[in-house]
Order: sequence, then C-alpha cells, then structure tokens
Amino acid sequence: MGEELGVTAKKSENFSQWYLDVVRKGGFVDQRTPVKGCDVFMPWGYGIWEEIRAIADPMFKERGVKNAYFPLFIPKSLLEKEAKHFEGFVPEVAWVTRGGDEELEEWLAIRPTSETIMYYTFSRWISSYRDLPLRINQWVNIVRWETKATRPFLRTREFLWQEGHTVHATWEDAKKEVDEMIDVYSRIFRDYLALSFLILKRTENDKFAGADFTVAFDTFVPEAGRILQIGTVHHLGQNFSKPFEITFKDKDQRVKYAYQTSWGFSTRLVGAIIALHGDDKGAIIPPAVAPTQVVIIPIPFKGREREVVEATRKIKEGLEDLGLRVELDDREQYTPGWKFNEWELKGVPLRIEVGPKDVEKGGFTVVRRDTGEKSFETDVNVVPEILQDIQENLRERAEKKLEESIVTVEDLEGVRKVVEEGKIARTYWCGRDECEFGVKEETGAEIRGTRYDVDESEEAKGKKCFFCGREAKYVVYIAKSW
Amino acid sequence: MGEELGVTAKKSENFSQWYLDVVRKGGFVDQRTPVKGCDVFMPWGYGIWEEIRAIADPMFKERGVKNAYFPLFIPKSLLEKEAKHFEGFVPEVAWVTRGGDEELEEWLAIRPTSETIMYYTFSRWISSYRDLPLRINQWVNIVRWETKATRPFLRTREFLWQEGHTVHATWEDAKKEVDEMIDVYSRIFRDYLALSFLILKRTENDKFAGADFTVAFDTFVPEAGRILQIGTVHHLGQNFSKPFEITFKDKDQRVKYAYQTSWGFSTRLVGAIIALHGDDKGAIIPPAVAPTQVVIIPIPFKGREREVVEATRKIKEGLEDLGLRVELDDREQYTPGWKFNEWELKGVPLRIEVGPKDVEKGGFTVVRRDTGEKSFETDVNVVPEILQDIQENLRERAEKKLEESIVTVEDLEGVRKVVEEGKIARTYWCGRDECEFGVKEETGAEIRGTRYDVDESEEAKGKKCFFCGREAKYVVYIAKSW
Repeated sequence: MGEELGVTAKKSENFSQWYLDVVRKGGFVDQRTPVKGCDVFMPWGYGIWEEIRAIADPMFKERGVKNAYFPLFIPKSLLEKEAKHFEGFVPEVAWVTRGGDEELEEWLAIRPTSETIMYYTFSRWISSYRDLPLRINQWVNIVRWETKATRPFLRTREFLWQEGHTVHATWEDAKKEVDEMIDVYSRIFRDYLALSFLILKRTENDKFAGADFTVAFDTFVPEAGRILQIGTVHHLGQNFSKPFEITFKDKDQRVKYAYQTSWGFSTRLVGAIIALHGDDKGAIIPPAVAPTQVVIIPIPFKGREREVVEATRKIKEGLEDLGLRVELDDREQYTPGWKFNEWELKGVPLRIEVGPKDVEKGGFTVVRRDTGEKSFETDVNVVPEILQDIQENLRERAEKKLEESIVTVEDLEGVRKVVEEGKIARTYWCGRDECEFGVKEETGAEIRGTRYDVDESEEAKGKKCFFCGREAKYVVYIAKSW
Repeated sequence: MGEELGVTAKKSENFSQWYLDVVRKGGFVDQRTPVKGCDVFMPWGYGIWEEIRAIADPMFKERGVKNAYFPLFIPKSLLEKEAKHFEGFVPEVAWVTRGGDEELEEWLAIRPTSETIMYYTFSRWISSYRDLPLRINQWVNIVRWETKATRPFLRTREFLWQEGHTVHATWEDAKKEVDEMIDVYSRIFRDYLALSFLILKRTENDKFAGADFTVAFDTFVPEAGRILQIGTVHHLGQNFSKPFEITFKDKDQRVKYAYQTSWGFSTRLVGAIIALHGDDKGAIIPPAVAPTQVVIIPIPFKGREREVVEATRKIKEGLEDLGLRVELDDREQYTPGWKFNEWELKGVPLRIEVGPKDVEKGGFTVVRRDTGEKSFETDVNVVPEILQDIQENLRERAEKKLEESIVTVEDLEGVRKVVEEGKIARTYWCGRDECEFGVKEETGAEIRGTRYDVDESEEAKGKKCFFCGREAKYVVYIAKSW
C-alpha cells in the first residue's frame, strides 16, 4: 500500500533499519501520522494483538478476574495522592487543560496507568473481608509523553495494554497472586508467543513507582544486543491502600488496610515477536498468534486456471474446517513470486502453493516460514501438525538464543566486554546503589535484577561485587535495554 | 458493594430516578468518579458491552472488515480540514495542550470521532481501484465534552464505541454498503439485544457533520416518552475524500475521488437495554447479551446443606456443558431472598433455585425474570429453550411498545398532544426548515426523520404539512429525545 516491498537491511548488521522496514513494509504499523510517537496499528499488527487478547483474556477470567472500564482522565490531585507514583509518572503525562471553550479548573492527566483512578473507586467497593479478593482487569489505551526516541510497538506515546489490579486481605495472599500471575504470563509468553525471557526481580531503584517489589519479564534480542521488558507484575503492598483508604473489616472485626497487586503487558509484545523471531526476509509470527496462519497462493498456468482455483478453494475449506485462520491470495495483479515475498515479510507461518502439477498429483506444496522447508502434501490434516512444529521450533530457537546470550563474568571489565559484544552479563553484586549507578554510567548497561523464579543467591556466596569488590549478595543480569 | 439494594422509584412514575437506581444499585456503573460524566463501567455493565462486541465483531469481519487502531490524538489543524465536521464537533472537544512539562505547539483533540485521523491515513493506503473497497473498524474510547446533563451510558463524556469506515469506488457502492450495514445493525439490535427501533433518514439539519445523508436507529422508551438514538450509518459521499485527497486510479486510468461510509454504535446500547426492557424490580438483560444467563441459588436447610450444594454443582456443570454462562451464588452472608432481589435488579434472565425438596424430587425450580413464571424442571436441557423464549418475549414486548407509541396526526395540535402524552407523533411535512425549527420551539420535540427501510412518501401525497399547511412531501416521526 504505497511503499516498496522488501527489507533493505540485514537483521544482524543494522537491526534498527531492519526492524523499521519490517514493521512498515509488512503492514504492521503506519507511522506517517500527524502526531509523533502515535502510530496507526494496521490490521496485520493489530490482528496479532487481537489474538494475544483472545488467548490471555479467558486465562484471566478463569482466575476470577472481571473486566471493567475506568475513565481515561485522572485529575492531577488524584494522581498526586501516592507521592512516588506521581513523581515517577508526571514527567511523561499528557494534560487536558481545556474542554470545549473553557479552561478546566483542574488539569486532567490522560492515564499513564490506572492505579489512582481505580483505587479511588476500589475503596468504595470494599468494606469486608468477604469482598476480597477483588480482581479487575481492563484492556485500554495508555499515553506516556515520551521524550526518548520512539520506535513502533517498542516505545510509543500511545499504546494498548491490559492492566490487572487485585486486592487481598494479607501480604501473603498478594504475594501468592503475584506468583500465580507470573505463571500465567509465563505460559502466554512462552507457549503462545514462543518468546524466551528472564523473570527478574527489579532492583529497589528500578521497581514500579509505588510498588513493594516488581517482577519483570525481560526478553533479549541478540541482533540488537538489547533487553526488552515485555511484562511486569507488581506487589504493591499497602502503598496505595493507605493513601486511597482501601480498608476492610476482617473476620476479627478489625478494620485493616488491604494489600494489592497490579500486572500488565502491552502492544510492545507485538514488537517483541517481530524483533525476536524475524529473519532477513521479514517477520515470523508464531502460529498461535498469527492473524493468518496459512496463506494459499495459486500458481496460475494458462488454460488451467480453473482447476487451480477449484483446488485452492477446496484446500481453504478443508483448513477452515480444522479451525485454522486461512487466506487465499488470489489477487490477479501480482505474480506468485511477489506474493511469496510479501507474505514472508508479514511472517505468515505457512504458505501453500498450488499449481497445475500439484493438482495433477492430487496435492499441494507446503513451505514453512521458519525453515524454508518445502514438502508435497496430499492431506490437509498434516497442516495443524506442521504449524505445531513451527510453534515449537520458534520457541526452541528463542530459548537457545537467550541461553547463548548470557555470559557469566566476575568484574567490570568482564561486564563491559560482554555488553559490548551485545550480550547479557551475569555477575555478582553487593546490592549498593553506587555500583548500580556506576555500571550504568561506565557501560550504558543496567542491572536488570535478580532471578525471581530461581533462587541463585547461594552462588553469590563468597563472590565479590563486580564493581566495588565488596562481598557479593546477589547474582544479577546486566544488559543494555530499550 | 456499599450502596443499599432496591429500586426506590417506579419506572412509569419517575423514569429518571428508576434508571439511576437500576444502573447504580445493579452494579452496571459507578458514577462516583472525580470527573463528571466519566463513569466507571463496572463488570456487570461492561460485561454486556463485551457480549455485544463478541456478537458484532465476527459479523463485521464476515463482511471483510478488518480491525485496526488509530491514534487518540487529532491535531487541531487536521480536525479543521472538513469545515462542517469541525464546526459540528469543536464545541465538545477535550484539548491536550501540554505534554510533560511543555506547552504543545499545536493543541491535540481527544478523538470525538475518527474520520479525520483515519482518512489522513487512508489517503496513503489507497492508490488503485484494486485497493477498494477498504473496510476498517476500531473499538475505542471516545470523548465529547458534554455541557448537557450526563446520564450513565446514555450521555457520558467518555464512552466506548465501534466505528467502521469504508471506502468505495462509486456513490452506488457506498450506498450499497450503507444498506448492508443497516441490515447488520438491524440484526444485532433486534435478534440479540431484543430492541425495537425505527430506521430513520435524518433531516438535512440533523445529519452527521460531513455526511451526504445519515440513517439512524431510534429506539423509544415509553416510560420516559423519549427517543434514543442507538446507532448511525452515514453516507459520506466525497465530502471527506476531497479535503483528505483519498483518490484512486480507476480501471479507465482516470484518477477519481473515492466515496465513503462510516457507522457506529456505542456503550449507549447498554443503557438502551436497561431502559427498554427493565421493570420495577430492575433490569432485564436479554439472554444473548447477559454476562450471566442463569444464576443458581441454593436454598440451604439445616443439616441438608451438602445435598443441596452437590445438586447445584451438578446443575451448574450441566448448564455449562450446554455452553451457557452460569453463576452459582453460594455466598453465605446473604439470605436467598436477598439474592433473589439482587439478581432481579441486575436483570439475570433466569434464576434456578435448589432446596432440599427440589433435591428430593430430583429437580430444580426455574424462575423467569421477564414474566416471573415459576416451573419445576428435572432436565437441564430445557434451559436453553426457556432462554430462547425469554429472548423472543422481550423482543415482542419491545416491538409492541414501539407500535403502541406511534400515533398518526395531521396538525401541530395533534403533534403537541401526542408528544405531551409521551408518544411519537407520525405526521406529514413539507420539508422546510421553518417547520422543522418551529415544532422544536413549540413542543420541544424534534423531527427525527423519514423511514429509510420503507418508502412512505406515497402516503404524504395530497396531505398538508402539519406545521404550515403547505403541500406535504414526507411522512415524518416527531418525538422528544435524549
């Protein structure tokens, strides 16, 4: 649609250009909007988000989460209620100051996240231990007025996300919720999006503004040498329940402040999928979230068009009967070769070609996007198996990439070298701010945290801090990030 | 959750209070937010919207409509591009004037509708007749800075909607799309939401700002004596394609301006469902869109709790196996009677009661929300039939209400009388602005338009205009509206 096809850069040589080519030319996004950093999510890109939502939403609901919708606008005074939260978000708030012809008495923030407006309301919904746990989620748009360079899906001023917010009677109940949501996110990201990731507890300096602690999912893109945060789960303790007066009468008749969690992932996931799985030909979308899982391309041959068209229609019906998302690309103005390139760029996991020879032999040719492997098939029932195989192959590849990117080192020089090689340094840390800020200044890379799902602290015993040489307490992961 | 149960007003005596009681106490909405007119759509109210979306979205997609997401922000200069459109919307735009610490160079409108931002983009997506038709839809939030009194779902400053936008090669193609979308909307509103409505072509003065013509769905609430617009379909002609330069090279190699349509419905539908179907006990939600279709309430009896609980679980499983949305209300802190009232207020279409006697007789008691009828049943397979019957009964009731509300009259006094009785006046009109503005001033009621689905113009022949006595051209419908 108006732009030339084809990726102009190799992923390993110029990741930034490669990524822009893929998202633009593959029809994921249109950045040519009149507001910088506010992109159009085009049907192909938005379609992946729809599939992610269709997978995640029932998983949330199974846990008793209910969807709702809270206002876009948050009055300034409300956003200020939790001081750290306000400080954390105020530099990137878009403010509504006028409604119609009138100046507003109080500025309204476009939600940069919804803790404050939700918890203002939760305080009225909860009065007894019987009202707990409360589990509310919303799928909404978010605005953060980024001053950093924006990049489609990965960092945009407006994006889409889900934010889940839960309220519990005890710190332990909230902790259990955090752990269970980490498990839910892990399954979504690994089993459906085929992503690999580290589950890291962020440092005190890096945790969410207002959290007791933050657990983040970090995926890694070797070709860019950068980590990408793809989801977070926060234990909020009583940091919000106190200023927002979310209290409940417990079984012992005492009125207590509740404990809370919040968790979210965003359209950044679409960018992560493209960045992690793609190759020099374009994107590779995992079958589980591909808006089109199989594209059928007829190979016309003069005088035999009808046979071919009939065969493709039959295959399409057969695949749809199996519950697959299928598109028949019978556009006449493009050659088959042109179509192959376009669908490879978009990342459709499986292509089926049907020419007169295939028809004669009573079958069709299947081409896998992940490996390029071709095979001749006669039964549509093999297709779900091949898709399953692609899904697993993408996941295995992604896991291998992550494993190969982590290098354990013992000192700053080691960290510097690993980071410069575009990898993740795994090392030992004393836990002091000086060393955390120091390594950022020296190398541009950040301490991303300690593993949350595996206790690695034993290994730090007897080790020295990579930065200051003092006694180490933690095994940490250091990398550059977006 | 914090408010007393129970509707304090009769629907027929004080509709406004009745409506507020139902939406607040039934858990549809929480209005106690810090921004006037920006309500919280609570899980029960939002859940209905989710069901509507789940029904409509596949119907759109079947027609080749693709979902996308366009930016929330529209620069002032872009909104101004189509002059009438700008004039129509500018009085109710919320403006972002600051991002972070900085004054913006250009004010950004929070989308009051997305024609301008979408068509700015469409112009780059379309170059050939082969790119047509283009059909794009989005499910998003909308802001209109209302100065009128707000009312939950019916008129709010922020609401949710879907907006479909299509582009075609000819005026006739766009007209066909309009007609087909009217059919789609009719099916959604009638077959699933059980609403009755008039399909009216709005007058020139009342059409959408920038449309060639507007067709609107008007439902009528007799207890309020008011019409409610629940959806619109616009033929935009070339009114936007010219300023936005949406052109295509046609088969004849000539570059032409395209023709467009747009169509939308909003969370107002949730309010329409409540207003139209509800009774003095509360809401009645049609089974097709009820977040919970069946609630099971155990009637505990000392010493026999276990039998009852086991029976309810079995019934729940049986109903869920039939694909129904079921809730078991086994909360111990409430009496069965209290629960009956609450679920009646929320409008769950079917209640199942299970006490020890029911268990003994090997069955359960079913209570219909629409008629209050009770029956004893032994087989869960009857439930889908009963729900289907409720669905049809609600639709028939709604249709009867509309029919009974339309009264044909011939002059202004007749119109005045009918409107004062809280009905819809059907009468004859010459087509002149003077009479349209005149009746509004005299009676507070508006000419809502002429029927679009049925040509009634023959009937106007030989009749006099109800207002001025000149020769009539149209049969029109006049009523007060929200």
